[in-house]
This record gives sequence, C-alpha cells and structure tokens, in this order.
Amino acid sequence: MRLKLMARWAAAVAMLLAFAQPALAEDGYGLWLRYRPLAAGPAADLATRAGSIETEEAADPTIAAAVAELRRALPGMTGRPAGQGGTLLIGTPASPRIAALGLLLARAGDDGFVIRDVTVGGRRLLVIAGNRPVGALYGAFHFLRLAQQGALPARLDVAERPRVKLRLLNHWDNLDRTVERGYSGQSIWAWWKLPIASDPRYVDYARANASLGINGAVLNNVNAKPDSLTPDWIAKAAKVADVLRPYGIRVYLSARWSAPVELKQAKTADPLDPAVAAWWRAKADEIYRAIPDFGGFLVKANSEGQPGPQDYKRTHVDGANMLAAAVKPHGGIVMWRAFVYSDVDPDDRAKQAYDEFKPLDSRFADNVIVQVKNGPIDFQPREPFHPLFGAMPKTPLMLEVQITKEYLGFATHLAYLAPMWSEVLAADTYAKGRGSTVAKVIDGSLEGHRLTGMAGVANIGSDRNWSGSIFDQANWYAFGRLAWNPDLTPQAIAGEWARQTFTPDPAFVTPVTAMMMGSRQAVVDYMTPMGLAHLMATGHHYGPGPWVGDLARPEWNPTYYHRADKDGIGFDRTRTGSNAVAQYAAPVAKRFADKRTVGDDFLLWFHHVGWDERQPSGRTLWEELVSRYDRGVATVEGMQRTWASLAPMIDGERAAQIASFLVIQKEEAIWWRDASLAYFGSVSGRKLPTGVRPPAHDLQTYEAIRHPYAPGHH
Amino acid sequence: MRLKLMARWAAAVAMLLAFAQPALAEDGYGLWLRYRPLAAGPAADLATRAGSIETEEAADPTIAAAVAELRRALPGMTGRPAGQGGTLLIGTPASPRIAALGLLLARAGDDGFVIRDVTVGGRRLLVIAGNRPVGALYGAFHFLRLAQQGALPARLDVAERPRVKLRLLNHWDNLDRTVERGYSGQSIWAWWKLPIASDPRYVDYARANASLGINGAVLNNVNAKPDSLTPDWIAKAAKVADVLRPYGIRVYLSARWSAPVELKQAKTADPLDPAVAAWWRAKADEIYRAIPDFGGFLVKANSEGQPGPQDYKRTHVDGANMLAAAVKPHGGIVMWRAFVYSDVDPDDRAKQAYDEFKPLDSRFADNVIVQVKNGPIDFQPREPFHPLFGAMPKTPLMLEVQITKEYLGFATHLAYLAPMWSEVLAADTYAKGRGSTVAKVIDGSLEGHRLTGMAGVANIGSDRNWSGSIFDQANWYAFGRLAWNPDLTPQAIAGEWARQTFTPDPAFVTPVTAMMMGSRQAVVDYMTPMGLAHLMATGHHYGPGPWVGDLARPEWNPTYYHRADKDGIGFDRTRTGSNAVAQYAAPVAKRFADKRTVGDDFLLWFHHVGWDERQPSGRTLWEELVSRYDRGVATVEGMQRTWASLAPMIDGERAAQIASFLVIQKEEAIWWRDASLAYFGSVSGRKLPTGVRPPAHDLQTYEAIRHPYAPGHH
Repeated sequence: MRLKLMARWAAAVAMLLAFAQPALAEDGYGLWLRYRPLAAGPAADLATRAGSIETEEAADPTIAAAVAELRRALPGMTGRPAGQGGTLLIGTPASPRIAALGLLLARAGDDGFVIRDVTVGGRRLLVIAGNRPVGALYGAFHFLRLAQQGALPARLDVAERPRVKLRLLNHWDNLDRTVERGYSGQSIWAWWKLPIASDPRYVDYARANASLGINGAVLNNVNAKPDSLTPDWIAKAAKVADVLRPYGIRVYLSARWSAPVELKQAKTADPLDPAVAAWWRAKADEIYRAIPDFGGFLVKANSEGQPGPQDYKRTHVDGANMLAAAVKPHGGIVMWRAFVYSDVDPDDRAKQAYDEFKPLDSRFADNVIVQVKNGPIDFQPREPFHPLFGAMPKTPLMLEVQITKEYLGFATHLAYLAPMWSEVLAADTYAKGRGSTVAKVIDGSLEGHRLTGMAGVANIGSDRNWSGSIFDQANWYAFGRLAWNPDLTPQAIAGEWARQTFTPDPAFVTPVTAMMMGSRQAVVDYMTPMGLAHLMATGHHYGPGPWVGDLARPEWNPTYYHRADKDGIGFDRTRTGSNAVAQYAAPVAKRFADKRTVGDDFLLWFHHVGWDERQPSGRTLWEELVSRYDRGVATVEGMQRTWASLAPMIDGERAAQIASFLVIQKEEAIWWRDASLAYFGSVSGRKLPTGVRPPAHDLQTYEAIRHPYAPGHH
Repeated sequence: MRLKLMARWAAAVAMLLAFAQPALAEDGYGLWLRYRPLAAGPAADLATRAGSIETEEAADPTIAAAVAELRRALPGMTGRPAGQGGTLLIGTPASPRIAALGLLLARAGDDGFVIRDVTVGGRRLLVIAGNRPVGALYGAFHFLRLAQQGALPARLDVAERPRVKLRLLNHWDNLDRTVERGYSGQSIWAWWKLPIASDPRYVDYARANASLGINGAVLNNVNAKPDSLTPDWIAKAAKVADVLRPYGIRVYLSARWSAPVELKQAKTADPLDPAVAAWWRAKADEIYRAIPDFGGFLVKANSEGQPGPQDYKRTHVDGANMLAAAVKPHGGIVMWRAFVYSDVDPDDRAKQAYDEFKPLDSRFADNVIVQVKNGPIDFQPREPFHPLFGAMPKTPLMLEVQITKEYLGFATHLAYLAPMWSEVLAADTYAKGRGSTVAKVIDGSLEGHRLTGMAGVANIGSDRNWSGSIFDQANWYAFGRLAWNPDLTPQAIAGEWARQTFTPDPAFVTPVTAMMMGSRQAVVDYMTPMGLAHLMATGHHYGPGPWVGDLARPEWNPTYYHRADKDGIGFDRTRTGSNAVAQYAAPVAKRFADKRTVGDDFLLWFHHVGWDERQPSGRTLWEELVSRYDRGVATVEGMQRTWASLAPMIDGERAAQIASFLVIQKEEAIWWRDASLAYFGSVSGRKLPTGVRPPAHDLQTYEAIRHPYAPGHH
C-alpha cells in the first residue's frame, strides 16, 4: 500500500513536471545558463557540497547577485531543495569567515577568484572568494560553469584572474533601435522607453556577460549620433548602467567627434580650441554625475566619412588626448579606433592604418588605448594579424574582433569564430623576437602596459535567442572566454559551451565540437579561399559579388581585392607590389613575402599568383581554388549529416531551427561557390577540371541577383 | 508514517514546481492562452468532465490542432494527468459518434460550433462539434475560454456562429521587417529566412488567432512593394500559409497596383488593357498554385501616393473588377480600400471617400468588398462613423479598424479600444430607418449581403509579448471577439480577457475592467477632446502638434482640423461650412448639424464654436476644454492608483512593466495637456480658469520639441 501510494505520488510528480514543459520551451533565451538537472551522481555530489549558500556580505549588490545566481541555479541542477547538504560560502576578505581561511587570494588579482574545498572545524566547506565582490561573482559563475558540465573534481582548488583589463562588448546599436550589421532583431536597448521603463532582459544580459567576465559595454554604434550625448540620452544610458552595475559591467559611449557643433553648442570641433576642450570636460562631468562609474568614450574618427580631428588639420593624438583629459579626472578612458583608410589615398588599404598610427606611438595620453581590428582590412573570414600589433610598443593596443557575422554568413551560417580569434591571438609578431604573440601585446605583458583590453562587436539583439541563432551564442561565449584568457583553446571553449547549452553527453559534445571547429574554415573555403577577401555583394554584404568593380572608391570594389585577370589572381603585397609585407617584423615579412613559405591561408592576400602555378598539392592554382570551393560546400553537407545524427539528442525546437539554417547555409555555400567559379572561370579562361560540377547558372544570372531586403543594411 | 511520507512527497512536488518557476517567467508570450491551474473546485469539475479527449477525425489537421490544444491546456488547468475522468468528444458529423447525437448543428452554421453536455448510454459526455473542422476548433477554444475563467455551468449547452465571414488581420508589415505604425518590434514574418526556415512563433500566432475566430491575415503592408508578388516572395507567403492552414486562417496579400510595370512585365497598369488583365490572371494562377486556398488581394489604390487605376483615367470599379476577375476562378476576393483623399481636392477631407465611392455603388463585381475605416478621417481617438456605412446598399462593405495605436499612445499608453469599436458598430446609420446600425451593415443583415467582413490593422510584432504591452494584447483579443460577434459588450470582453490573462479573481477583474473601460476616453480627453482630431506631431504622430500649419498639403496640418482662431475652435461641417453632415442619413445629419443635439463627443468635429459659448455644464467652451484635458490626466493618475493596488495580485514582471508604462503615459498625458492648453490659450487669448495648473513650459518650448527617434516612422 505504501509503495503503491509512493508510486502514485511519483507519477504525479512526473506529470506535474511534464505539464510545466510547454512553458519551458527551448527558445534559446537561457543561453548557457540553463541550469538543467544533472545526472544522478553529479547532482548528489553537488547537493552535498553546495546545498546551502552563505555569505557575510549580502548587503553588497554584487555579492547579492552572486548568491542569487547560485540559489537560482543549484536547486534546478541538483533537483533538491536549497538548504540541505553542504555549505558554500561566498565573499571577499571583508567577510571574517573568509579572511580567516587564508586563501592566498593574491592569485586572484583584482578581478579574479579562488574556488576551494576546505575543511573548517572538521566540516567541509566550499569557498568562492575574490578580493573584490566582482571576483566572487565571477567565481560563482565559474563554479556553475564547471558544475553544469558534469562531475566536479573531488577536491576543487581553482584560482583564476583575467588576463586583460577591459573585456568589452561594442554594440553597433543605433538610437532608432536598428543595429548596424545586426542580424538578431532590434537593439536590446529599448531606448524610447528608457529611462522610465527598464526591461528584465537587461538583467539577463548582465548575467550572461558576467558569467564570462565581460566587464564593459559600449552601448551605441561607433557611427554615432550627437544625440546620444544629450541629457535625455545620458539619462537613458544611466538607467542601463544602474542595471548593469551590480554585475561589474561599466557603461561606455561612442562619441561623435562633431557633437559639440551639431548640438549647436560650439562653432568648431577643433580639439585644440579651448572652447571645445571645455565643452567635452563639461560633458564628461555631466555624464559622470549621472553615471559615476562611466567607463569612457569609444571614438571612430576620420574613418569612413565620420568626422574627426583631421577635419581641423589636427591628429588622432590631438583628438584622443583632448578627450582623455576630459574623462581623466573621473578615472575614465578613451578607446580610439585605428580603423582608418583615406578617401583620397590610392595606397593599399591594408597599409593605411599602420602608416597613419605607427608614427603616433608614444604620443597618446596614459588613459588612451588604441583599438585595432584583428586584421588590416575589415573582419574578413580570414586575415593576417594587423601589422600594428607589435609596432606601437609605447601605446596600449586593444584587439577588436567582430562577433556579429557581417562577413561570415550572418545569422544563418554556422561559423564558430574562436578558431579565427585564436589564430590572431597566437600569431607571432616577432616584435621582441620569437614568442611576441598578439596575445602578449594585448595583455600588456610584452611591453608592460597596464591598460589592456579586448573588444567584440556584439551579435546581440532583441531576438528571443539573443544572437539570431543558437550557434551564434557560442561566439558571444567564446569572445568572453578568450577575453578572460586568450590562451584557452577554441576546442575547449566549444566543449564548455556545448555541454552547458545542450547536454554534457560526450556522444553529443564530441561530434558537435568537431563540427564547430571546422565550421569557420568552411566559410573561408566557400566564400574567400586561399587569402582572398572582401568579395561580398555591395552594401549588405549578402552573397557573392567578386565581379563588382564600378563603385566610387577603389577599395570598395571586390576587384580591388582579388585583382584577377587572365594570368592570375591575388594582391601583390610584396616589394613588387604594395610592399605591405614590410609593415611586419622581419621574420614575419620574410615568411609572408615568399610564395613558398606564406602558406595557402594567405597566399592570395600577399601574392598575385598565376592560374597555372603548381601548388604543394600538385594541382594548379586554379584547380586548387576550385577544390577549396568544393571543400567548403562539402563541409557544410557534412555538418548537415552530423546535425541530423545529433538533433534527436536535444529538444525539437532548437534542433529544427538549426537544421533549417543548415539548409540555408548549404544553398548559399553553393551559391557562393557557383557564382565565384563562374566569375573566376570567365576571367581566367580556365575550364573546370574533369568531374567537377559546373555552376548551376551562367555568370550573368549571378550578376543579376539583387537582394534589396537582405539583412545587414543600416 | 504514511502521512509523513505523503507530506515529504508533497514537499517534493511543491519544490519541483517551484524550480520550474524561473523558466515560467511571465513575459506575456502566452497571451490569453496561459492554461494555468484553476482553483480546486473548478479544476476537479473540469477533470471530471474533460479528463480524456477523444475524436474519430484525428487525421484532419484542424481537428488534430483542436485536440492538441485541449491536451496541452487541460492537464495544466486541472493539475491532473490526461486520460482520467470524463470524456470530451470533438469533431464534425463526419464522425459517426457525433452524427449519432443529433446535435442540431444547423445552429453552428459553416464556421460555428455546439458545446454540450450529453448523456450517452447512461454516461456523461461533453461534445464539441462543428459542421466543419474549423467550427470544432473554434469550439475547443471557446470551451477553453469558458474553463479558464472559472466555474463552468452545470450543464453546458452553447451554440455560436460568427456574424461576419471575413475576420481579418491586416499586417502593415514591410519586406525589410519594419512595420508601418508598428510599436512591438519587427514583423513577426522573418521574411528573409522564409521559405526555408519557419518559426514556432507562426504556430502560436495561428493558435491565438484561431482562439478568437480570426480566419485571415493580409501578410504585407497596404503600402505594398511589387516584390511581394515575385516567385520568391510567393514561396515565402506559401510557407506561412502552410503553417496557418490547419488553424483555419487564410493568407491574403496586399497588391501594388503598378506591380506589372515595376516588375518590368508590362508597359502599363491600365486595368482595361487586356495585357494587364492577363498579367494579373497569370499572377493569380501562379499564387493559387502555391497557395490553393489563397484568400485574395487587399488594395490601397490612388491613396496617399499609391498608384491606382485613376493614374490611367479609370475608376476604382475598373481596377477592383479587373483584379476580381483574376481571382474569381479560384474563389478569391478583392478587398478595395475606400481610404482615399485627393492630393488636389480642396474639399473637406472627411467628405472625399464618400464623394468618390458612393457613386460607384452597385458597380463592383460580386467578389469585391469595399473596406471602409471606422471614421471618415483616419483612426483618430474618436470619430463619428464613416458616412459610407449605409450609403452603398448594393455593395458589401467591410469595417477596417486599427488595432495598433498610431493615434492612441503607441505601445505605452493603456487604451482599451473595444469601446471605440463598439461605439461605431452600434452607431445607427438610419439607412433603412432606426436600428440600421453599422454592425448590421457589415454583417450583411441590413441589405442581405453574403460577403461580409471586419479587418483590424494588427498590433503584432516580434516583441516577446507580441503587442508591445500586455494591455495591447486586449485590443487584439477584443478585435477578434467583436469580429465574431459585434454585439458583445466591451465590458464583457475585457472581463474575459483579464480573467484569462491575469486571474479570474473578481477582486482583480472588477477594478481592472473598470480601468480598461475608461482608458480610451482618457486618451480622447488628453489628446483630442470634444471632437477635435489629428492634432499629433508630424510624421511619427508622437506627441502634440496642434500648432503645425506649414505642411505642404492642407489636410496634413493639425490647424486644418481644429481651425482655432481668436473667436473659436472646430471644423464647421454644417451647411454653413463643408456640409459633411449632409452625407449622413437625415435623422443623423439633423442631430450632427445642431450644436444642441450633436453631443460634446463630436461638437468640434461638426461645429466651429465660440470660446465663450456656454456648454450644458454651464462652463464656457474654453473652460470645458480645459476641464477635459484635466480629466484626461486625472484619469491616468487614477489608473496608476488602481494598478498600484492590483499589481500585487499578479506576477512582478508584468506588473512592473505595466506600472512603468503608466508612468510614461502620465508624463505624456501631461505633455499633451500642457502643450495643447499653451497653444489654444495663445490662439484664443483666454486665460486658464482660476485654480487650474498652468502648463509647465511656455508654448515655444513645446513647439521646439523634436523626436527624431520616436517610434512610428516607416
């Protein structure tokens, strides 16, 4: 009878949980913070070690956020009520119980944490501690990251600290809620309803970022409007800052250089005009009154039509230092972008940022950091590392990568970007001899800089799944993890992400990780193989446009980049060409300058190569190029097969969306391959090798395709 | 021991349900289909009567959808597993068990249903039946509507059928996913990813509409692009149609008159040119191949710059009938909008649709229906009924209302619109004597038309809560319910909606319903009291602009509408003025033409009234106007108080959002009041009565306000 009764109750429990399911739709909103039930063993272990959460610093908003996160997460993961089992103690040395433990918190630095199983008075205690509350918060999220992935080590002893100081998202969000190069809906900032109406989503945004250690957000587009510096908009930013603050996230703003003029409060924006400097000082004071921990300004100046100090015959240094002086009394910084290319200079665009910024080394104020894109052009599927890295030893440089996939398939192509970013971080600049990696440049260790950073152009929008697709969440995740520790491997990050986002089951994680690891190379292969770049259609960049050569400025045209003719293809950047190779340190320059050593990833980036030149594979360049396009398509087909086998292991909702996006990706990979081969075949006069499938349509058909409603404009 | 065990299990159940809570966040996505647990008594009763769902027609997709909805809903509401308790049988007379019951299904008509408790072989059976599957589906939703509201009658015996045939949403959704006058994010149609990627949201959209009996959706903006008629976009519409079909929802498209020319497939769009007619016939054939149950076209022609047959010196009849012939072989219809006003005609804009369309009565083909807005101008907070209602007896007319609140506060003002629509539906045209209500015109009963309809401009977007605010969901709900039965009272509809959306607790429902019922009048009072209209700011219509008088066309200017001068205010539409009153039937015209009988809702719509003329209240017009503005603000303040008292009865997430929106509404109500009084005070030279709070700023300040980022453009 008793057993029967228990069985009935058990059935009731199962039923009630089942009823809750429709509302628990896997719409992707939960990101990697899903906190689903663990397997029995890990669940029991977790409950034993962290059954109740304790702190002596509950009054601190950041500690409170950490405790709330743990209390939100653990019962769901353990399937047990809070308050049973072992104790998890969280806090800082301000807590007497933590201070008494002698945790060697020096290892945690300003922002890091220690997680340890200790024994106090014969009882086990799990401690998460940081020197500051934000470190404890990061520790809590790290603990949950470990726990969500399955079994914890028998004895936890973890100490981590972030390698770079500024770990920032750059939102290219406009004030009308459009997002430049955003593929996931509108801006998450519901500007119009701010500052009165907040949104629970802002808190979830903060949680997700804090879980990765991201500690700053530039709220508005680098192509900024002056309006964002008006009192109304400062109040809106301040409201967002209030919500993000407990999570250790500072708010920054993109500043439009000409704002004082456009707001009709100054006659000039000349940085050396005292009235202009006074305007910015007063503006900074005003902002800091509303946002006491305001981070500072990000500036895109004299770039792609944006105004800047050069409009007044002044330099980037003049501009940056004037702004830096305005925020300096408040502890603020200026991030000045090196993404510039002249609208008159006929020189190789890839050389221009270096040419313009290298001479400015050592002249920037100490609260200025120069923000440099990963490569010298513009977030292409693959670029060599930017030659400025290592070339400005006396200036802090921060790395800017693009999380949103402007050039890598938007929301619907699966492309895991950590391998791309790691490739750049691990690239050796040889600035101070072997081992002078980009990672060591941006973490300050190479030159002893203390102001260090990494910025990612956010892929976040109002879509329920945040990033437009589930796999694009992995890029947000990977950015944050690499900004915390540039030495983490893309493979490890993919595994972490997949276990938390889907399931820790190795039967799922191993193949899905392999699929992710190959996905970016697939995009390179079907879009811009072997060092090609910037072959996308005009404006929206959606689909192929290698034939485009009639745009007003030379460097807007794909033909400028590929330089294909009847003899060969590729941009000669050696001494016989633009000599961009000379911007790199000698060992790097030497390797890039030689077709035999450059490697085929960058062959056509640095060299104009004859169509019939033999490659290491034994194939001619033309044959090799064809094989790369085919490999790209084949990889996507393989991803479809992989996903078909994995989909049954997860929920139907996300599985179906991912499957349908892979269909789109395959169709568009074929479009890219066919259109590119039709075009390059017509230019080269070469025929496709025997057995290779010809393009489905003729070149004219591809050239005639227009997509006025493609995403990506704004 | 046994009791202790049960108690532990009970605690476990409670805990597990509690864990599920975070994911069950009340973000508004569930609309009125939340299916939350009922109170113990009604839950037990419901389980007893509808424990298991049975059908003999599971192969029918619409019956399957009905069964799925019941199975999704009932366990959550009853808290009991499916399969226990009594039987609910659903289907049509195609089911032998239903046919055998003799249910007098004639009462259900083509689209209606019967819901009855019957006894078969001594056992109770609950039957939901329609003559067609869609009727059964509507019956299932009606049953769930009743059940969600609390106790069911001891013996159910309901028969309903819709009063109008076409119950349509008009989406003003553009192909780039912007929505004209949309205040709830992007278009729910993720056009770019269609037709490959569908979205679970489309199904939920269909469920919500079917729950109200809405049976058609015009997918694209009446300001249409020709692209929507290309094969690519027809395929996208077809995919949406496939998803909506099981829910009884047909897809329609807005057609751009000049499409054949713009698509470069014809030299003219002259409706009498045989090549043009042939193009549209072929286009219709093409659409019907992709969408066999395509509903037809909605056309905005020769209106606000849209092309139309008049561009070729043809008439609306020429255009509509040509298109009608193209869709006629497939059973399609044409909805031709009467919303026209000339860009050269200096006559009263309120008269123009009538002047243009009345002479066309009897000349339209039998599959054409003319779509007429509720009032003669454009969805203002209050307009008299459109004079075309009752004036075109030989032409089917459908009513067009605007669910999205272009002129009533967008997403953040709480304004329940059912009272506005009911006011129009109940208005007596006197076309065939007393009782010739607009409702009887549009349901066909007045003139014996069989093609009948009601359209609502949708307020649906990609926002998680669908409509931009929780209370705006009530307007979607009310539109559907009134299209089903124009005689339902706004009060009853508000009650239904509130019980399902929040809680059936009368302590909540009674005050919230009262608040809703007064909310639209509040907007009238603080924006355009006493018959004023169209005083909104230019372009986005956000905020007051009564002073605007410099726009190119006279009828774009607020000053055109209010005609305020030092002597008085209002638009004389009597014989001494534009004589628009003469467009109404004599008894109506007589009432409107006399200041003493028109009533103060329409006083200034029809009359220019002296500032010092005494009103029935004893106050002068100026004093009365001031008091209306004050009343509007006071009502919003009262809504804030009401909500503060009710909010604790619901979830914090929705409560907080509604509270913050009420703060915005109050601030903007004060802005409207202050700016309007500052302006009208300056024009009239009248001072504010003693004790009345003066505007916070001077008129120049209000006139200088610009909102370049206000929602509403596109």
